[in-house]
Amino acid sequence: MLLAGLLDRMIRVGTLGVIDAAGERRTFVGPEPGPKVTIRLHDRAIEWRLLLDGELALGEAWMDQRLTLEEGTLYDLLELVMTNLARADRRGWAGVVQRGLNALRTAWDRNPIWRAKRNIAHHYDLSGELYELFLDSEREYTCAYFPRPDADIEEAQRAKERHIAAKLLLEPGMKVLDMGCGWGALGRYLARTFGVDVTGVTLSKEQVAYANERAAREGLADRCRFLYQDYREAQGRYDRIVSVGMLEHVGRAHYGELFAKIRELLTPDGVVLIHSMGHMAGPGYPNPWIRKYIFPGGYIPALSEVLPALERSGLWLTDCEILRLHYAETLRCWREKFERNRARIREIYDDRFCRMWEFYLIASELSFRVGDLMIFHLQIAKDRRAVPLLRDYMVDRERELLAAERAPRLRAAE
Amino acid sequence: MLLAGLLDRMIRVGTLGVIDAAGERRTFVGPEPGPKVTIRLHDRAIEWRLLLDGELALGEAWMDQRLTLEEGTLYDLLELVMTNLARADRRGWAGVVQRGLNALRTAWDRNPIWRAKRNIAHHYDLSGELYELFLDSEREYTCAYFPRPDADIEEAQRAKERHIAAKLLLEPGMKVLDMGCGWGALGRYLARTFGVDVTGVTLSKEQVAYANERAAREGLADRCRFLYQDYREAQGRYDRIVSVGMLEHVGRAHYGELFAKIRELLTPDGVVLIHSMGHMAGPGYPNPWIRKYIFPGGYIPALSEVLPALERSGLWLTDCEILRLHYAETLRCWREKFERNRARIREIYDDRFCRMWEFYLIASELSFRVGDLMIFHLQIAKDRRAVPLLRDYMVDRERELLAAERAPRLRAAE
Repeated sequence: MLLAGLLDRMIRVGTLGVIDAAGERRTFVGPEPGPKVTIRLHDRAIEWRLLLDGELALGEAWMDQRLTLEEGTLYDLLELVMTNLARADRRGWAGVVQRGLNALRTAWDRNPIWRAKRNIAHHYDLSGELYELFLDSEREYTCAYFPRPDADIEEAQRAKERHIAAKLLLEPGMKVLDMGCGWGALGRYLARTFGVDVTGVTLSKEQVAYANERAAREGLADRCRFLYQDYREAQGRYDRIVSVGMLEHVGRAHYGELFAKIRELLTPDGVVLIHSMGHMAGPGYPNPWIRKYIFPGGYIPALSEVLPALERSGLWLTDCEILRLHYAETLRCWREKFERNRARIREIYDDRFCRMWEFYLIASELSFRVGDLMIFHLQIAKDRRAVPLLRDYMVDRERELLAAERAPRLRAAE
Repeated sequence: MLLAGLLDRMIRVGTLGVIDAAGERRTFVGPEPGPKVTIRLHDRAIEWRLLLDGELALGEAWMDQRLTLEEGTLYDLLELVMTNLARADRRGWAGVVQRGLNALRTAWDRNPIWRAKRNIAHHYDLSGELYELFLDSEREYTCAYFPRPDADIEEAQRAKERHIAAKLLLEPGMKVLDMGCGWGALGRYLARTFGVDVTGVTLSKEQVAYANERAAREGLADRCRFLYQDYREAQGRYDRIVSVGMLEHVGRAHYGELFAKIRELLTPDGVVLIHSMGHMAGPGYPNPWIRKYIFPGGYIPALSEVLPALERSGLWLTDCEILRLHYAETLRCWREKFERNRARIREIYDDRFCRMWEFYLIASELSFRVGDLMIFHLQIAKDRRAVPLLRDYMVDRERELLAAERAPRLRAAE
């Protein structure tokens, strides 16, 4: 069996059974307990591909059913793989080959506006109904904030809105730019709750249409507009800039441009909040399967890759929060809803699409649970005096916002 | 006048009068209002030195009275210089010469233990009475935390202790290592308030003697010990590691060693807090005057210099707070007390020493007020689950600690 040597060294946790195309069965048992999974490999070529370029091949083999499960679930399989990879010494030849391939794939990585448009359309212009079928009612497609571990996705996404708003120190009438506004949920929340004037930009035409239509329906059209624009094309002056889940699409060659643009758009006493995924263990190549099938052009940075550009920009970093595990819980909620609606999603697309998305959602969840991914919040300002000297206001404002939301409900219940 | 060309370009804020050794008087007026100062240069050599190596020469000229004031104070002079330098385009030849000299001075910068010992003794083994004459009653010689802008240094240093303790999630009986423990104030506070067992290490023999003597006097000797040790020599396993104002002495070649040592000493569910000065605008050469006269071997990092080593260490950054202006207020308090006790300090040392320290305290204050210095708090853990998922506990614990401190006083007053 081709993979035997590699798996013998790699499996330190859990048990992996493998049945190869010739019907040979081998079991690899790690010294520590963990998931127990048996896979069947349906042809010999897939064994070679798993050996040389496993990060791409595993997801493709799963989508194409050239790898199937005899025992355990996809979650178990990915947990087994990722837990063992997180501990593996990847200096062996297989790790070197994989890193070499990944390096080639990202060596000339640039996101000029035309390519950024294509990349974003690839993912976010999928059927709106798909997003309805696994996201919350406001279609927030970024990490939620779980005030309690057992909060549901609606509660956690509303808590995220308050958590971000508290860091933005909003006052009525302020001009707010939402860079990478998605379907406009955060913008509508800010306009509705704080009486601010929101401009959102995104490169998904589906998102622009949905966001504007919904703002009109909710009577917010005078205070909210959503534009089909690259962040580099944004114009005007803004008191506040917020960007949730866009930095992952910016690309590592463009952080200097991003901060220069923010500096240009921001008022002298302005405040910025950037919310992004990050690698805790330092710069890492993007997963090639995710890049090919889910997020073309995406790059998840380490803080050490973003900070040099921020420092050079002359802006102040005024706070940095690291959110751990919140995205694992968010992705779990999305996956559970996806599974509940799988039959309908299969009707819109097909079974292979469902397998692809299940792989994506589970692999992402595990990247936050056992891998080194986290969410960072960079609060940024031009002037070191633009935000209060103590961070207490963040917690206090967030609690006030929650109390204010509950108050009308309490009054109504009386 | 040698300096005329340089000052003509440099002064954009305020007014600088210069009387040179030949008695020639020139006035440089910036387009923006600011401090108004007139200096006298007592010999021609000092003009050359200010031109070519102003960062070292200004402080030396002041100490040696080769530069004196005809109008304005030393604070005004340094505010004028630093405000204009912060805005200057330093790509001109004078900036290039200065950076070249600074680069040479720090090119082979290493702090092996023998040199670290010498460096620390240079500053911290000065007369204990000196520190008594400008620091607070507990001799905390690091940035305080000002809950109100008009808090005095005693209140602000006590608030700092609570602020740090809240991030450490202490439980009675835990083993705590204080790396760079100074005169032991934080260690004694933690032992007294939380019933933890504290080991402090420092390379100042004066500090070790003082810290142990004071712990014994306060009945804490069974729970507090302070050792003459480099952080690299520390032994044992600790639930918590705290390091306040040591990273500035570690040196940029040694961050990897520091985090490896922390990893070695920390329990699997341990928590670390590192408090350090940092450059917001990216890596910068240390000021050569400060390095020569005040802190030999010192290096203030940018976050972008510390994070790569932290990321490689496999530890988790769980929070990063940026404290702005707190150190400016701390240094103002120290300077005011220094001035009140100047006659006594002059008796212990001499007038040149007083001028040196005044220059040091004022230049440092202005580095935090108009320069790019800040304090960062890195909260670090081995396990992403070692600290709560929401940061609210920090604010809540700090407030509980304050309430608990006030409660006995309120009861006594009844």
